Amino acid sequence: MKQIVDIIQSVRLDDVEDSLIILDQTQLPNQKVYLSLKEVSEVWEAIVQLQVRGAPAIGIAAAYGVYLGAKQSVADTIEQLRDSFLETKAYLATSRPTAVNLFWALDRMEKRFLTDHESGFSIDAIINGLKEEAEQIRIEDEQICEAIGEHALTLLEPGMGLLTHCNAGTIATAKYGTALAPIYLGQEQGYQFKVFADETRPLLQGARLTAWELSEAGIDVTLICDNMASIVMSEGKIQAVLVGCDRVAANGDTANKIGTSGVAILAKHYQIPFYVCAPTSTIDFTCKDGHDIVIEERASEEITSQWYQEPMAPAGVKTYNPAFDVTDHSLITAIVTEKGIFDPNDLKRLSKSTF
Amino acid sequence: MKQIVDIIQSVRLDDVEDSLIILDQTQLPNQKVYLSLKEVSEVWEAIVQLQVRGAPAIGIAAAYGVYLGAKQSVADTIEQLRDSFLETKAYLATSRPTAVNLFWALDRMEKRFLTDHESGFSIDAIINGLKEEAEQIRIEDEQICEAIGEHALTLLEPGMGLLTHCNAGTIATAKYGTALAPIYLGQEQGYQFKVFADETRPLLQGARLTAWELSEAGIDVTLICDNMASIVMSEGKIQAVLVGCDRVAANGDTANKIGTSGVAILAKHYQIPFYVCAPTSTIDFTCKDGHDIVIEERASEEITSQWYQEPMAPAGVKTYNPAFDVTDHSLITAIVTEKGIFDPNDLKRLSKSTF
Repeated sequence: MKQIVDIIQSVRLDDVEDSLIILDQTQLPNQKVYLSLKEVSEVWEAIVQLQVRGAPAIGIAAAYGVYLGAKQSVADTIEQLRDSFLETKAYLATSRPTAVNLFWALDRMEKRFLTDHESGFSIDAIINGLKEEAEQIRIEDEQICEAIGEHALTLLEPGMGLLTHCNAGTIATAKYGTALAPIYLGQEQGYQFKVFADETRPLLQGARLTAWELSEAGIDVTLICDNMASIVMSEGKIQAVLVGCDRVAANGDTANKIGTSGVAILAKHYQIPFYVCAPTSTIDFTCKDGHDIVIEERASEEITSQWYQEPMAPAGVKTYNPAFDVTDHSLITAIVTEKGIFDPNDLKRLSKSTF
Repeated sequence: MKQIVDIIQSVRLDDVEDSLIILDQTQLPNQKVYLSLKEVSEVWEAIVQLQVRGAPAIGIAAAYGVYLGAKQSVADTIEQLRDSFLETKAYLATSRPTAVNLFWALDRMEKRFLTDHESGFSIDAIINGLKEEAEQIRIEDEQICEAIGEHALTLLEPGMGLLTHCNAGTIATAKYGTALAPIYLGQEQGYQFKVFADETRPLLQGARLTAWELSEAGIDVTLICDNMASIVMSEGKIQAVLVGCDRVAANGDTANKIGTSGVAILAKHYQIPFYVCAPTSTIDFTCKDGHDIVIEERASEEITSQWYQEPMAPAGVKTYNPAFDVTDHSLITAIVTEKGIFDPNDLKRLSKSTF
């Protein structure tokens, strides 16, 4: 019997109001506020202000933004609609210039526009096509996440203790998330996992987001500081580690939130399987190995003063604040994608068959 | 040529004023404030409020407190002085009931009182003896720390990158600290170490204290989040790890601030030596191995809300907040004491020869 689990959908269209509903992630974990966005400028603002975050969620929001813009256009001709469309697209592209998924979604919307235009569709039909395409982007993401979750769940047993790092959850995607997908699917099937969430300094995505969304779904979650991963593993509380990722190189080396490589080394030491959950779209076969991945360095203040009442480090102290690290493929038990479970040394199989 | 390095002495007697000078650690890292304490109640308060912290520093402060109390006593007879002494001692013992070093120092002061009393000393001579004893406790701690530093320095090379966790520094001891002692001694000899300090969640001793005291001494220090230890090691920035400890078991298993065992596992993975710096007084031969060490669990708020402007985790979320963890002796390259450098498997040698 499938149990009802309240899995949050943080980006979706309200069909009646024709407005984009997003969960305002800047107010988490203290307030659960949904925003109803009708204007393109509101969607742009939501992306800029990080009210919506997570690569797939940003892409979905931007796609809906393009649709809302077209719907409100005063264009009398298809040419005018196209000009307005391109203006909206260019504007939304400025909202988060480093988010590859944003551009991917906007380009896909443009492709749909052009296809329908070339097919001789009316203005109304083109606008409707954009709505369909945005919906399709959202649905596909949800299906990918669900498939990742189903594959990953085959690696887990009921009652297991699971450790996760950062937030690769439902609120970063259309639904389910990547690393958290098997946890939600397991919850629906009564698996009763005991989840440990690393708080994930300096931006605390584990504390603010992962602990919050799992709690909302009624999942047994325990928040720990990053430096407690070793003791919970040593005490036998963890049977598997699940993390998401930002980019996988051809040899299986994986870039993910800072601290992931450390968790992987601990897991290996304690002989605990370490699973990376990721859509195949994050596998970059042009990237030979982890050395090809450039690591973004971020501002000192994230470590010394952000969130705090007063600075927690001496004024002017030197810091080092890399946003990501690379986990060597030798530390990864398996990479779980929507297309199945892969040995990190064997990604070529995926490359040949499906790319 | 020995360079002049400003190594802070956070607990000392002002001979002219006959007052106890302490560095108010609760105001770090934002304010460097020294307090001048003349009353026993002020010393008690300083310990309770954590204005003085670190086992050796607390012991030294309490010993000086006993002396200040005796000096201000209005006793006309030695019996009255003894009653007053015992009252002061009992009072100071309530300041931090879990600090073993506090009781050790107070008992040592009582022993001195009794010895001088039995020797037929006058009231003034007894009071002077207490001052001498407190000074002796401070000087011995400084000597122990310096000896640890000298031994540890033989394991290091100029220009090395060093990682440390928590604060085992000069402000926790009479001078030099334990894990930081070789860094100060190296600085005096122009070693130019590059030190990386883990911030050490949840109480941030690395950020607030270690980064501060090393900066004050002009040492090249870089603050990182705990989860960045792996990346700095992988990038070749670390040639040795130095940590202090709270307790060493007979088999070399070592209890220290939460996160230490994780750092040790990373160091082993990256083939970096991992050194525990500790006075022999922390080796507990009645404790067979790490399993005998009880780990204190602390309040949830330290993880979820302390220091923050608003809570950073969902209300009521479960947490796990162990204050310490145990590093297996197999992960420790050497234990550096004031009596020399020991293989963790070979502590018995120390037990036979000197205990």
